[in-house]
Amino acid sequence: MDEVLKAVLKRIKPTQAERRQLERVANEIVARVNLACAKLGVPARGVLVGSAARNTWLRTERDIDIFILFPPETSREALEQKGLAVGWEVAGKRGRERFAEHPYVTMEFKGFEVDLVPCYDIADPSKIKSAVDRSPHHQRYIGKHLTPALADEALLLKKFMDGIDVYGAELRVQGFSGYLCELLVLRYRTFEGVVEAASRWPPGEAIDLAKSYHDVGEIKALFSGQPLIIIDPVDPNRNAAAAVSMQNFATFVRACQDFIRKPNTRFFFPAQARVLGPQEVKRALRQRGTALFCLTFDSPNVVEDILYPQLRKTEQALVMRLVREGFEVLRSDVWANSKAAILVELSSEKLPKVQRRLGPPITVEAGDFIEKHLASRKRFSGPFVDQVGRLVFEVERRHVNVRQVLEAALEERAAFGKHVAESLAEDYKIYGGKQIVKLCADKKFSKFLSEYLTRCLPWHR
Amino acid sequence: MDEVLKAVLKRIKPTQAERRQLERVANEIVARVNLACAKLGVPARGVLVGSAARNTWLRTERDIDIFILFPPETSREALEQKGLAVGWEVAGKRGRERFAEHPYVTMEFKGFEVDLVPCYDIADPSKIKSAVDRSPHHQRYIGKHLTPALADEALLLKKFMDGIDVYGAELRVQGFSGYLCELLVLRYRTFEGVVEAASRWPPGEAIDLAKSYHDVGEIKALFSGQPLIIIDPVDPNRNAAAAVSMQNFATFVRACQDFIRKPNTRFFFPAQARVLGPQEVKRALRQRGTALFCLTFDSPNVVEDILYPQLRKTEQALVMRLVREGFEVLRSDVWANSKAAILVELSSEKLPKVQRRLGPPITVEAGDFIEKHLASRKRFSGPFVDQVGRLVFEVERRHVNVRQVLEAALEERAAFGKHVAESLAEDYKIYGGKQIVKLCADKKFSKFLSEYLTRCLPWHR
Repeated sequence: MDEVLKAVLKRIKPTQAERRQLERVANEIVARVNLACAKLGVPARGVLVGSAARNTWLRTERDIDIFILFPPETSREALEQKGLAVGWEVAGKRGRERFAEHPYVTMEFKGFEVDLVPCYDIADPSKIKSAVDRSPHHQRYIGKHLTPALADEALLLKKFMDGIDVYGAELRVQGFSGYLCELLVLRYRTFEGVVEAASRWPPGEAIDLAKSYHDVGEIKALFSGQPLIIIDPVDPNRNAAAAVSMQNFATFVRACQDFIRKPNTRFFFPAQARVLGPQEVKRALRQRGTALFCLTFDSPNVVEDILYPQLRKTEQALVMRLVREGFEVLRSDVWANSKAAILVELSSEKLPKVQRRLGPPITVEAGDFIEKHLASRKRFSGPFVDQVGRLVFEVERRHVNVRQVLEAALEERAAFGKHVAESLAEDYKIYGGKQIVKLCADKKFSKFLSEYLTRCLPWHR
Repeated sequence: MDEVLKAVLKRIKPTQAERRQLERVANEIVARVNLACAKLGVPARGVLVGSAARNTWLRTERDIDIFILFPPETSREALEQKGLAVGWEVAGKRGRERFAEHPYVTMEFKGFEVDLVPCYDIADPSKIKSAVDRSPHHQRYIGKHLTPALADEALLLKKFMDGIDVYGAELRVQGFSGYLCELLVLRYRTFEGVVEAASRWPPGEAIDLAKSYHDVGEIKALFSGQPLIIIDPVDPNRNAAAAVSMQNFATFVRACQDFIRKPNTRFFFPAQARVLGPQEVKRALRQRGTALFCLTFDSPNVVEDILYPQLRKTEQALVMRLVREGFEVLRSDVWANSKAAILVELSSEKLPKVQRRLGPPITVEAGDFIEKHLASRKRFSGPFVDQVGRLVFEVERRHVNVRQVLEAALEERAAFGKHVAESLAEDYKIYGGKQIVKLCADKKFSKFLSEYLTRCLPWHR
């Protein structure tokens, strides 16, 4: 394992020259921010945060995060307006406006992606006004505790997360943030220590690095239902792993188990998933023998952190509706670019016309249930009592085809995300079976569909 | 309700003349049995048991049960041999040999079906040598407690059980015996009382008429898993309702609930189920849209009490196998005449080629699972982690068609009944979909299939 890790570190750790270049650029921007503040009469100052500030950036990463710290008494309006003004002053024509919790300016500068994010400079992290205000505190905490040796371990862990496809707390990914990786290294001291521990994590594992709580039971009650709970040492009310989905949690645990069994650089540098050609897609669909449907529509014009939760909510609503109507859903997934797509795969696209309706438990009078169904013209048989004692009617099923159910659900759009529902109200298309191959004209969709059909943990590719 | 019951009783209670006729015939046969014993030097005596002896026989019933009581010291061999000899002596050319726990002789005599059953005359019912030895004790107990007024109530209950199709403890029926009906009337004193109480029975209801146990908990522990427990006052180790299946238990409870809601003579005299013609069967099959399969084979030459449990065991083995292979079984049933049939109805006759294999829970190392499936040539995708965190491979399914699974199961014949398995090893046929219509040439099968397709509780027909 040591050799593997050494080889990996060599490839991912920035050289002295690269480090100095980044520092130079970062310092230059901070200076420009401070200059702009002075020039515009804004009582704020620039500060470098994120991995660039902590020596935990990967060579391939080209991000510099500069926060513009405002005094807490600034109004939210003033912060947004003045924050943007400072950003534009620094970026000039290079700038582009983006939106997270506040609007902010981003630019490309000397080969780096630079974010200029306004936030409040609040001393007590439990009193912050928005999530971004927490970053300077994280910066301070990590800066204080993460020695250079530990930073290398964090670098390995980040690259590991990246390689196994669970890196990033954004809602598209629902994975592990860089900060979370750093906290794990602070807790277990080495990459190997993290991997050893995580290989034995059950869902609901709780870690309280700064001992903010008396006991683990208290934590588990507070954050129940979350797959991983890492108490933020800077704010004990917050789970630093709140973004981590069950899927990514389990993927990480499995990766750790597999890595211990067979350490290998491919966990860090996995092979790319192969993109299937149209004929291969067609063959794969035929071989699976399932009923695959793809709903497509225009992506609503919102940021990914808003779009992806809505796509997943819509996906879940469709899946639940299909299941309620008696269909067996094997898998589903979402994808977005300028177009959005929701994929649902079923074991069969048709159900029998006959559907079973079960009466109340035997201790409950079933008069109403019986009268209602006896009066129905859709009765095939019943009432009768089945082998395990349940009262049964067999009635005519309303929707026999997947497409009918999807169209009915898309008419109602219940429990869809707001913006997604609006876009679906405008227009949509449902592609079924090999019709889906047409969509592969879009290279990015083609890649997504190939990955779906040949899905495999990256290190097993 | 009173009017309904009065009307029913009038139809089912034998007249004075009928009663006298039966008594005359019964006495004549008992005398003949005693004469035969004397003539053959057999130290036994005849005794009338069953409903004829208790004034709880329905006008339409034409059964007379005569037991030939042997002293307990008789060897089993002597009992069987001498019992038959007495039977043949009485029956002469009219006799036919049958088999229950012992062989016995039956005959038609003056319009009655007469059974001449040898058994041991054992004073202590807990020391009996076979189940038939219990009958004289039941006879004595009921004879002592069931007054003529109570006998009328029992008559109503028996006819009710008959009308709702749960009458008879034989294994083909798995229902309520006449003795059980009499015990229920002894407990609740009137037909109405029984129905009132039973309408509130949960599964596992326990009744200890003779207060043989200290508390109900003790009884429920002893007979756990049985839908209804009526302690036999003659033998507290026995559940007099042991034969009652969950299906028949629930049917009776539902019938009681429905009868209280709307008392009606049709509970006692239900309409016949309509027999569908071939075209109607074809249409019903098409309308249901399911995959119905019928396995047929020669009935093994055994009595119904042996045949039916084996048929149901085989039915369950086939259903479990189909479910294990991923199919959804909607209903199933068995039928027997000279041919036997097992019916299974599925929501679909095909499954997709792809099949999901789930790995062990996350806290369990999955190395072996992963290696095994990675090496398989039948892999479509995986390993991957699904949305709820389970480790998944998608592999090629072995059996895609119902027929393949049935044929594989019929090759192995695991957990089939012995005689049924032997017959199936000889030969069988599987009819699918509208091929089944061909089987309707057999009128009795046609009736069974019609009843299956239009299944309905008798009083709702």
